[in-house]
Amino acid sequence: MTDIAKRFENNPILKPGNVKPSVEGLAVECLLNPGVFRYGGKTHLLLRVAERPVQKEGIVSLPILKDGAIDVLSFDKHDPDLDTTDPRGIVYKGKPYLTTLSHLRLASSDDGITFTVSDTAIFGEGKHESFGIEDCRVAEVDGTFYLFYTAVSENGHGIGMISTSDWQDFGRHGIIIPPPNKDGALFQEKIHDEYWCLHRPTNDGLGGNYMWVARSKDLEHWGRHECLAAPRKGKWDCARIGAGASPIKTEKGWLEIYHGANEDNTYCLGAMLLDLDNPANVLARSDNPIMVPTTDYEKYGFFGEVIFTNGHVVDGDTVTIYYGASDEVICGAKFSIEEMLGTLGV
Amino acid sequence: MTDIAKRFENNPILKPGNVKPSVEGLAVECLLNPGVFRYGGKTHLLLRVAERPVQKEGIVSLPILKDGAIDVLSFDKHDPDLDTTDPRGIVYKGKPYLTTLSHLRLASSDDGITFTVSDTAIFGEGKHESFGIEDCRVAEVDGTFYLFYTAVSENGHGIGMISTSDWQDFGRHGIIIPPPNKDGALFQEKIHDEYWCLHRPTNDGLGGNYMWVARSKDLEHWGRHECLAAPRKGKWDCARIGAGASPIKTEKGWLEIYHGANEDNTYCLGAMLLDLDNPANVLARSDNPIMVPTTDYEKYGFFGEVIFTNGHVVDGDTVTIYYGASDEVICGAKFSIEEMLGTLGV
Repeated sequence: MTDIAKRFENNPILKPGNVKPSVEGLAVECLLNPGVFRYGGKTHLLLRVAERPVQKEGIVSLPILKDGAIDVLSFDKHDPDLDTTDPRGIVYKGKPYLTTLSHLRLASSDDGITFTVSDTAIFGEGKHESFGIEDCRVAEVDGTFYLFYTAVSENGHGIGMISTSDWQDFGRHGIIIPPPNKDGALFQEKIHDEYWCLHRPTNDGLGGNYMWVARSKDLEHWGRHECLAAPRKGKWDCARIGAGASPIKTEKGWLEIYHGANEDNTYCLGAMLLDLDNPANVLARSDNPIMVPTTDYEKYGFFGEVIFTNGHVVDGDTVTIYYGASDEVICGAKFSIEEMLGTLGV
Repeated sequence: MTDIAKRFENNPILKPGNVKPSVEGLAVECLLNPGVFRYGGKTHLLLRVAERPVQKEGIVSLPILKDGAIDVLSFDKHDPDLDTTDPRGIVYKGKPYLTTLSHLRLASSDDGITFTVSDTAIFGEGKHESFGIEDCRVAEVDGTFYLFYTAVSENGHGIGMISTSDWQDFGRHGIIIPPPNKDGALFQEKIHDEYWCLHRPTNDGLGGNYMWVARSKDLEHWGRHECLAAPRKGKWDCARIGAGASPIKTEKGWLEIYHGANEDNTYCLGAMLLDLDNPANVLARSDNPIMVPTTDYEKYGFFGEVIFTNGHVVDGDTVTIYYGASDEVICGAKFSIEEMLGTLGV
């Protein structure tokens, strides 16, 4: 048994029914992969809320953003040009769409266990976010919060950035890493006077779904891209990997909790230790996952056998992760950092 | 007939036989897609030279760079795990390799027509260029030349940058746009105090092989990525598109000669006119290609039916492009800029 996570007893802590749809006519289908931060004495989750129209008999309908409003596309379920194999997306006449439209919604808690969902929401804007915004990592650097999220549209999925210092006013900085790319995670301090981030090109040809690092002077413009790590044949992370949240600074190195999927699309979590001085160097990596879908809420759901985290808080030796389970509900779990480093042999 | 190119009478101007292999045991298989610049009163081509080991009976062998030296990988031609369908690459046990290893070589000319190949060469370096460097665009900004090229390795193909002011000393700036991406072309002046470039994500999922623009303060770090143009269904550029060389500044807008391929992999050239003030706005685009593979050297070769340009010089109304024909030989052609703008209806 390599699963060293101590799951919350009240998991799942949030389900689709806990969240009010953003507009009438849409239903909240799934809650996914929250960004996490502390602000004003509370723990906050920035949930990904995936909505779709209430489905009618014989029709597949899906929402997209158009000129700032929601437009619903409808397809005949039995149209031979329609491919509905994957619950997350359809393909119509060779053109892919997402079945749901995601926005980000704030939920807050005094104890980090019981969360109240608020009406504060961030929606996609413009031609690079017409299919929504997803999987937001929240990093705090010098009192400003930087949101790295997946911007999705018919133009592809890239990494967008939003900044805020008060969670009232938001600055939009456009696409900082171009498609096809996901899983942007910012280091929460400069290293040798440069910002660093992790990102994950999606790549079907030469090079696969590998993790990369990049550097920046101003957080808006990125360069010095370097390949960090690839999936490993025969292991739990053989098909694709990607960053979780911001790396955790430890004496031994930057500790990154990342996700890996195998060919059966089972998403587990593992750890990676990166050189404090140059995070492009991987010092150690989990031979076996540190968290595996085992509970019912992780095994069965909108897209089962999935644990995906991109947010946590750290208190001394304890890291509390919040995660999407089976692409449907939000859960929490605690790890001991020392125990996690132990599994890496350091 | 929409082909408005005046091809050189002495095409092809350079063939593989004109270039000495970089090391013994390799043969120059193809010359491709030169960057072009003027320096010291001459016209220079920065050729892409693709080499591979002299092939032996029953064996497919290919070169890669390893620790600064060339390593030859060999495969049994009849191995059922070997896929040799595409002459440009093989797939062995699901893993892709290139059949050739490319470096860049300088060729110079007094008249822009007859070129002499020199020994000055630039080779790939490090883990992001182990499969070579390709298709280099050369842009001159304030007396410094910036080389944007495709860096290829098992980690994918991204855009690398090299700079030089004297073609003796070269600065390496790493990967400036991460994989999967090709066709980086720099605007040769700042617009509203920002550098701009064109680039082309390679994308099999949402979003296809579309052209994008990005902006930079320092040429090394890029942000503000925006989708510029997509392939067009039913047209000559329906499958994929990508930038040629640096856009040409005209009174009507930035004129970009770009390549488009259809589903038969026929590569033609077209033109795109971009807003002088904000190049993310496309003002006009060729309904029909301005140059089509028609001659024997364009139709038959290593990979036939291909015209690909990423270098030109401009003299008044005349733009002289240099191009790779059928991925094998180097050719030249002239266009009238006014005539080209005329085909765009401006």
